[in-house]
Amino acid sequence: MYRREIKVVDCTIRDGGLINDSKFPLETVRQVYRAICESGVDYVELGYRNSKEMFSPDDYGPWRFCDEEQLRQVVDGLDGGSTKIAVMQDAHKAVPEDVLPADESVVDMIRVATYVKDVDKAIRLARNADEKGYETTVNIMAISREGGPSLDEALRQIEEETEAKAVYVVDSYGALYSEEVHFLVEKYQMHLKTKEVGGHFHNSQQLAFANTIESIIKGANYVDGTLYGLGRGAGNCPLELLLGFLKNPKFKIVSLLEGISKAILPLQKELTWGYHIPYMVMGMLNQHPREAMAWMASDRRDDFLAFFKQVTEEYGE
Amino acid sequence: MYRREIKVVDCTIRDGGLINDSKFPLETVRQVYRAICESGVDYVELGYRNSKEMFSPDDYGPWRFCDEEQLRQVVDGLDGGSTKIAVMQDAHKAVPEDVLPADESVVDMIRVATYVKDVDKAIRLARNADEKGYETTVNIMAISREGGPSLDEALRQIEEETEAKAVYVVDSYGALYSEEVHFLVEKYQMHLKTKEVGGHFHNSQQLAFANTIESIIKGANYVDGTLYGLGRGAGNCPLELLLGFLKNPKFKIVSLLEGISKAILPLQKELTWGYHIPYMVMGMLNQHPREAMAWMASDRRDDFLAFFKQVTEEYGE
Repeated sequence: MYRREIKVVDCTIRDGGLINDSKFPLETVRQVYRAICESGVDYVELGYRNSKEMFSPDDYGPWRFCDEEQLRQVVDGLDGGSTKIAVMQDAHKAVPEDVLPADESVVDMIRVATYVKDVDKAIRLARNADEKGYETTVNIMAISREGGPSLDEALRQIEEETEAKAVYVVDSYGALYSEEVHFLVEKYQMHLKTKEVGGHFHNSQQLAFANTIESIIKGANYVDGTLYGLGRGAGNCPLELLLGFLKNPKFKIVSLLEGISKAILPLQKELTWGYHIPYMVMGMLNQHPREAMAWMASDRRDDFLAFFKQVTEEYGE
Repeated sequence: MYRREIKVVDCTIRDGGLINDSKFPLETVRQVYRAICESGVDYVELGYRNSKEMFSPDDYGPWRFCDEEQLRQVVDGLDGGSTKIAVMQDAHKAVPEDVLPADESVVDMIRVATYVKDVDKAIRLARNADEKGYETTVNIMAISREGGPSLDEALRQIEEETEAKAVYVVDSYGALYSEEVHFLVEKYQMHLKTKEVGGHFHNSQQLAFANTIESIIKGANYVDGTLYGLGRGAGNCPLELLLGFLKNPKFKIVSLLEGISKAILPLQKELTWGYHIPYMVMGMLNQHPREAMAWMASDRRDDFLAFFKQVTEEYGE
């Protein structure tokens, strides 16, 4: 599926930071940055630009805040090629004042993550970044729990009140099947006359890559992935698979594979992600993976029967 | 997606036997059999009924041959419920004489696996089983390398010359994307006026479950899965995910989860399956996973760069 308009965003460090409180060593971040730039992927998201009032720097690593001097240490001496740098702001956990004018920053794009209910906060952050000269996107999380009139209203507002390049379908719970992806992309397209649709999918049910493909087939032109699917719970759409599907000759998969060998495999010693039954159960139930993450960290992690009974008692089967 | 006509086939022991030469302990096979019967899944495939002339019983375990007395040890004392028993014959590695009349066997269904080029051998085995009173299917392997006129001819022959209930799209290389699945299911439907279409997909590119969904959406009514995706290379469509999608109240996912805890997780100590970069590369290149399996068994398994260079030199990128 070669379509020139498609923009690929790597969010390995940003989304992966949700499993280790954004505590990656600088060298790991530099290895990821280098691999992404060499691969020709369009954007590399190096973390969150969230507020130190909301997250204590004693508890969270530098990629939760992405101070400018920190980002300069990442790019120092490396050839960024055509790859642009993104950071994410959480609508309810970030402030406009943490964003410098774009011409004083190494950042090119600010992505604002929001729940439907927080869309006014998201619009405030997106407009702030628009006005300071950044590219922006708005990423609507937990979309598998939305779909009613407040989503339509949020989409209309984002369309009218921001300069965002794209608005994302974000399947935080890894709960969507292909027909639901089709439905949501079409709904977004109906409201977004001046913006692209984006897709970001989680792998609880082994559908992150498949749903990314389905969003692209329906016309989504901004799509996310991470190296080897690194990410919270079952993880994300593996970027290496995505480039294989896209078949755009500007992309070099081999650079990603080298990056995975060097930067990602060593993380497996301390971090766990990928398909596991507790994550699958929560995806199937359309729930946040947090109870599965707690179960996976306990000594009962392989007692799937007990986990299933606990969560289906709580949420129904 | 609830559709009463859909038949689900578990092939954990049969397909999983490709990674351990069918050497599962009897107790593991009994645990799998019990879990599948309790879950309400329609068929459980307990192995191959292949020829001892082609596979030496010194080198292969009992589930490569599935002698009747062996199968009776599996079912002994367990309640099979509504679940029927299947075995597979390879068109080029099995003989008609190894199949007893159905009323002397615990087997209900014989599935014949074939390449397009061996379809005449497959038809001979399928007719033999038809005549002896079994349900049959014909499973066309390596389908991602087919699609030309010899596939059409094979489908016409199977339609006309056998009583098979279903003819399968088998993505042995894990190479298909959704649009190709749609194309193949439609092609099969065009030729198979009296038979159902089946789907069996491998997970090299994390698309086994997604492609199973896509085949169902197009009308496939026989679909395969294995517990926790057990299978050669990256494995198969995980049966637990498939039941979650099907939402048929007759199925009990919880029985599968218990079976995975007891019978499948312990196998992880000696067997490796699931998503790994070498398998993904071979899927992307539309090649058999055998070179990836050899690489994974070597001490260079994590040197993805070297593997990629080796196989793209051989097969092109």
